[in-house]
Amino acid sequence: MQAKQWEVRLSGTGGQGLVTAGIILAEGAGIYDGKEVVQTQVYGPQSRGGASRSEVIISDEPVMYPEVTESDVLLAMSQEAADAYIHEQRAEGIVLVDSTFVKVVPETRAKVYAIPLTKIAREVARTEIVASIVALGALATLTGIVSQDGLEQAVLARAPKGTEEANRAALHAGFAAGHEVREQ
Amino acid sequence: MQAKQWEVRLSGTGGQGLVTAGIILAEGAGIYDGKEVVQTQVYGPQSRGGASRSEVIISDEPVMYPEVTESDVLLAMSQEAADAYIHEQRAEGIVLVDSTFVKVVPETRAKVYAIPLTKIAREVARTEIVASIVALGALATLTGIVSQDGLEQAVLARAPKGTEEANRAALHAGFAAGHEVREQ
Repeated sequence: MQAKQWEVRLSGTGGQGLVTAGIILAEGAGIYDGKEVVQTQVYGPQSRGGASRSEVIISDEPVMYPEVTESDVLLAMSQEAADAYIHEQRAEGIVLVDSTFVKVVPETRAKVYAIPLTKIAREVARTEIVASIVALGALATLTGIVSQDGLEQAVLARAPKGTEEANRAALHAGFAAGHEVREQ
Repeated sequence: MQAKQWEVRLSGTGGQGLVTAGIILAEGAGIYDGKEVVQTQVYGPQSRGGASRSEVIISDEPVMYPEVTESDVLLAMSQEAADAYIHEQRAEGIVLVDSTFVKVVPETRAKVYAIPLTKIAREVARTEIVASIVALGALATLTGIVSQDGLEQAVLARAPKGTEEANRAALHAGFAAGHEVREQ
């Protein structure tokens, strides 16, 4: 894809690590890849109800309008998130759903990829907490919005001490899962 | 202070934990205190040069304009940050500087408080990494932008396993330091 500016929305429920994933994606693209990045979260009644959402704008030029209205890339890690945000997705963009939780994908003209992100996290790292890192790995492969190297550096810089290997395993499983679904 | 909307800027250098501090402040006010909150970081040439900045808007009503131009509350944890941002501070607001690093406070009409945040972190938690948590504690006392309870819940929810006590000690030292400078 050839967009000059990517608007990325990471959505799901609290506890899935999406705020941290947004920061990691922003730091991978902004600090390591040298892009201009704005990263945002909004807290309000939805977040107090358990929903979680993080947004990242990645651009080759300084970002002028920091509010994401329609996204180019949507990650939906819960059914509620898929139902809420898929209609705000641009037709030429891509959607990645966690098929561990998203059983019905709402109709959309965007390209949809389904990967069991949480199931993969359990298998490769024995913890669901890195499912959002699997997601970032898959998004890097599917979209090129961040380099694999830049993303890995950002993941390791943010991984709490002692969790580096679990995070690295999750990331690489995500790279591989992205390749696999793209070739189907 | 009686503002309906607070624009808060946390500034310093990479590695001081200011992005995480921004998330914690946002979650304390947004999830635990029930405010409307938008939290943002921007990555670009400055961040690649080692500067770090995080912004939090806290409001009683949904936030319409998410870009912080002038701040009501400024935390500056490096001399460079103080030099760069004190001129974008509203006169009726407050500035908190880490006097461990900020030796010269640029002229401003805003009220300035100086606390050795990093020195306190070393003393109470034996690590500089929680200096930004000392800062959040002091800001809570000095401004009331977040409740002490809400902030403590948010700090503990984000503290990596095994660091809870260091974070709690830093936070309470920050509450106390805020009281102390206010009474001077």
